[in-house]
Amino acid sequence: MASKKRKRYIVGVDLGGTNIVAGAMSEDGSEHYGMRSISTSPEQGAEAVADRIVGLVEGVILDTMAATDAHRRDFIGVGVGAPGPMDRERGVVIVAPNLGWRDFPLRDRITEHLGMPATLDNDANCATVGEWWQGAAKGGRNVVGMTIGTGIGGGLIINGELFHGSSDVAGEIGHTTIDLNGRHCKCGNYGCLEAYASGPAIATRAREILVREESASLLPSLVGGQLDQITAQTVYDAAKRGDAVANEIVRDTARYLGAGVANLLNTFNADVVVIAGGVTQAGDTLFVPLQAEVRRRAFRPAVEAARIVPGALPGTAGVVGAVATFRLDRGLGLGS
Amino acid sequence: MASKKRKRYIVGVDLGGTNIVAGAMSEDGSEHYGMRSISTSPEQGAEAVADRIVGLVEGVILDTMAATDAHRRDFIGVGVGAPGPMDRERGVVIVAPNLGWRDFPLRDRITEHLGMPATLDNDANCATVGEWWQGAAKGGRNVVGMTIGTGIGGGLIINGELFHGSSDVAGEIGHTTIDLNGRHCKCGNYGCLEAYASGPAIATRAREILVREESASLLPSLVGGQLDQITAQTVYDAAKRGDAVANEIVRDTARYLGAGVANLLNTFNADVVVIAGGVTQAGDTLFVPLQAEVRRRAFRPAVEAARIVPGALPGTAGVVGAVATFRLDRGLGLGS
Repeated sequence: MASKKRKRYIVGVDLGGTNIVAGAMSEDGSEHYGMRSISTSPEQGAEAVADRIVGLVEGVILDTMAATDAHRRDFIGVGVGAPGPMDRERGVVIVAPNLGWRDFPLRDRITEHLGMPATLDNDANCATVGEWWQGAAKGGRNVVGMTIGTGIGGGLIINGELFHGSSDVAGEIGHTTIDLNGRHCKCGNYGCLEAYASGPAIATRAREILVREESASLLPSLVGGQLDQITAQTVYDAAKRGDAVANEIVRDTARYLGAGVANLLNTFNADVVVIAGGVTQAGDTLFVPLQAEVRRRAFRPAVEAARIVPGALPGTAGVVGAVATFRLDRGLGLGS
Repeated sequence: MASKKRKRYIVGVDLGGTNIVAGAMSEDGSEHYGMRSISTSPEQGAEAVADRIVGLVEGVILDTMAATDAHRRDFIGVGVGAPGPMDRERGVVIVAPNLGWRDFPLRDRITEHLGMPATLDNDANCATVGEWWQGAAKGGRNVVGMTIGTGIGGGLIINGELFHGSSDVAGEIGHTTIDLNGRHCKCGNYGCLEAYASGPAIATRAREILVREESASLLPSLVGGQLDQITAQTVYDAAKRGDAVANEIVRDTARYLGAGVANLLNTFNADVVVIAGGVTQAGDTLFVPLQAEVRRRAFRPAVEAARIVPGALPGTAGVVGAVATFRLDRGLGLGS
């Protein structure tokens, strides 16, 4: 009697400055198991974070084994998405300011501690590949992914392949200049898209308006008058309740993002632009003026070729994409 | 006795708003013949321009036959580079404002009149491929090409392939926003790179400075006091003679181009950026501050991966690249 071929599993890890998220998927991507999250606690140092990742992955493996008939040997590896420029070949995170890391060999640490192969890629690349494999960018051939949170990350699918560029830095969309003499960005440059449209930048612009102008905005009341407590989330909440000032801030965000997206359409001529992260909670209040701004700024054949959509995998795109990059790294492709 | 394999030839055409340039190359690209140029005379209409192209190509073929032992049947086709967005599959120029064209089936006109196969691609794509095949971008894997003249065109080589994007619009680098609220561009957008760093934009900035400021600049004397006669060339000439105002204009140009190039490095992570066109006549006066601006604005691993160089094929990159795109279209590759 021929033995039935056993199902295999891959674990995905999304390492952020605040949280680590992990989950397992069947090798073909059709089943998801044991998604869980812990705090990153970067102040404990890089080795401690690596230990936390390993512990989280062990937990995911146990959960998955409990939910299936999988054995430990059925887990073929771990894909990891991490912030910052990296050397994929050596599996090293070169710089990650939010983690305080410099030249940390994350991939090999995980491989050693877990005893299974690991791969390393940029977190925004992973989120983009996740949306492309199983989310809102499915079917795209040339995809731009943007993840808007504390910063603005990006990833590019070109001619149906994840594009890393000449030194693994491709896709740093947040750090493209949209205003030559504009706001200072923490990258050192002036006028980066991130300095206008990231979560903290949205909150900063809200505070600036409230300090500058007399208005009947809801915003101060939502934070008990403590303007320094305003976050991008506060702005989305107020916008949903019809607050005029909050809506103006969201429309300005749409204008900044629209310029950034138009730049990408005129250079890349993508067929899908997928925008993920907290900002998508603003819904049509953001996406309608964003699309209008893109139409104003980009060439018509570029606009007509592209759909601009919110991400469909909030919270999990990075994990799904980390599994996908493990597959790609092993030459397994992403075909169904 | 085995018959010796006959050498084959390809003709390249670079169609511009002012001139048409054409030349023949041996199929392998090692020999160039009969480079010649005529005025475009677009005011005579699209069909007349097509006739002029055909006449020019016939002349190139005769010149080449005179210089070699080629027969007419040894010419296997014509690659054409033309401005504007196009539909490559149908061989149609969709819009070319400088020519006054809309939906003109240039490729088929040329094929019909010449009786040999033709291919059509964007002129800036051709110039980029020309520099990549035989010029300053040789050996690059991810190349950004910029051609600065009346406008700013661009082309992208990605993973060793000319990248056209999802609707043949990729590479419109001149129309990326570097100043959200900036100068009006003739594309309708505000703050495009082209509105600051094209030839006419350089001349405009020079005139603005001369009108605004008392200065001891050479510039007015170079145009007999007729400020409206100033061109980008006037500015380069004065800069070479040490004129402070002209040098300031070139440095500003470097700053604008630097922002545009930094954006491309942070998104594409290219290994070569090749800048061609009149602006390269400014030499180190332009390239030294341009490289400094890029270092200030782009991520270090992106800067370190890239060389930023002037084009090496002034006047002929478009023709060489048109021959190359014919080869690529026929699946002949660009290997030596």
